[in-house]
Amino acid sequence: MATDSVTVLILVLLSLCIGSVFADWNILNQINRKNVGDESSSSNSNSNSLKNYCESWRINVELNNIREFDVVPRECIDHIKKYMTSAQYIADSERAIEEIRLYLTSCCSLQADGKDAWIFDVDDTLLSTIPYYKKHAFGGEKVNASSLEAWMKSSKAPALGHTLNLFNEIKNKGVKIFLVSSRRETLRSNTVNNLIDVGYHGWTGLQLRGLEYEHMKVQRYKCEERKRFVNNGYRIWGIIGDQWSSIEGLPTAKRTFKLPNSMYYIS
Amino acid sequence: MATDSVTVLILVLLSLCIGSVFADWNILNQINRKNVGDESSSSNSNSNSLKNYCESWRINVELNNIREFDVVPRECIDHIKKYMTSAQYIADSERAIEEIRLYLTSCCSLQADGKDAWIFDVDDTLLSTIPYYKKHAFGGEKVNASSLEAWMKSSKAPALGHTLNLFNEIKNKGVKIFLVSSRRETLRSNTVNNLIDVGYHGWTGLQLRGLEYEHMKVQRYKCEERKRFVNNGYRIWGIIGDQWSSIEGLPTAKRTFKLPNSMYYIS
Repeated sequence: MATDSVTVLILVLLSLCIGSVFADWNILNQINRKNVGDESSSSNSNSNSLKNYCESWRINVELNNIREFDVVPRECIDHIKKYMTSAQYIADSERAIEEIRLYLTSCCSLQADGKDAWIFDVDDTLLSTIPYYKKHAFGGEKVNASSLEAWMKSSKAPALGHTLNLFNEIKNKGVKIFLVSSRRETLRSNTVNNLIDVGYHGWTGLQLRGLEYEHMKVQRYKCEERKRFVNNGYRIWGIIGDQWSSIEGLPTAKRTFKLPNSMYYIS
Repeated sequence: MATDSVTVLILVLLSLCIGSVFADWNILNQINRKNVGDESSSSNSNSNSLKNYCESWRINVELNNIREFDVVPRECIDHIKKYMTSAQYIADSERAIEEIRLYLTSCCSLQADGKDAWIFDVDDTLLSTIPYYKKHAFGGEKVNASSLEAWMKSSKAPALGHTLNLFNEIKNKGVKIFLVSSRRETLRSNTVNNLIDVGYHGWTGLQLRGLEYEHMKVQRYKCEERKRFVNNGYRIWGIIGDQWSSIEGLPTAKRTFKLPNSMYYIS
């Protein structure tokens, strides 16, 4: 009888283990159905876990289907925190950088005339704002501009190491590097100090938002800056940024690359 | 002694359970480091699992950082299979559709002049090719055009139920629906039969690739079709597709929406 109880206990534990192992793929369950996503699967759809829901939110932000959000949904703060502080976030960003390396091997007939250019976004491209957002619910609190700027003024943002390596590789090819950021012009010295402190140097231009651009959408401001580069004869071979507003609109580059970031949206 | 062995066994099983529960977040491990992704974390980065690697591959396809791939990497076939047949894939697609519904509530000053238009891609937007790719390694085999076309001719592709609902809602608003597909013109009757069989009807135009577009990149062909719509006075309020080539390029729509699909790439 005692042995039976033990057997039952062991079986229960074993089934829990198996359940947990498969729970790892609970976002990736095999579904068999005729019409994918039709009514017959709606019960399945209804039983979507919070994890499914938040992962869908995140992926649709990355796909630029969800735009203009003010805050990360309250119920997804934990999911976004986990992603933004995960090995997966690093791996996803590193893979984007690897694709740029691949692109650079054959993309561009670089000329030694000083007119080849590459554009980098600053926040969450060169520098990480994760330490700031760690204290502000990973985007789950509405951004407070003065608190964020105060943090930027402290010049304590860490480098995104994989982008730093790419920055140096591009610079070593003789390509001119322009940093185009939506940070305000008043943050110039703090930004320069921060960038230099963590290892960036040798850029050609750091474009920050002057008063004339304060009331313009960031995407348009960044387009205006690119227009100036093009008018000055630069060939923009690429842009890398974590926001769609950093890479969309005309004039554009030969190619653009998007880093993951689901903590905030700049339009 | 026997009790001790049982206790040990139970403890081992319990620890396995706990391990498995946390393995669910092994892609989302908390990492603490000063420079995000720098050398100090490279050991972490080196220990990235295959799952991390394949998830990064997938996410970078969705971000349009990885382009022009011929096949899903061999080692990631299982990961892509799991995603494309998962509740997460359905949830991600449904969320994209929800965002379109939200957009439609206030996007467009629709006029009753028959010139409001919406564009749908066909494969993996209205119809699912998953049953075909299920037999072809979920994109892990190089696409064989004649085998794929033979399957399309069978007119057995299931509907993507969430898109079918949206299709009807848009139609009921009096918006003209155009289907713009890279399928060849020779597949017209099979495509029409398939669409009708699974519930689609009432579209205004079904654009397939005629001989004149055979040697043109799909993105350019789709732009040419949109140019014709615009020249005919249509206001294109939106496009939904699973490929970047379905939604990028000029003229564009007021907004575009991207469904997930990492089985193949059409440029």
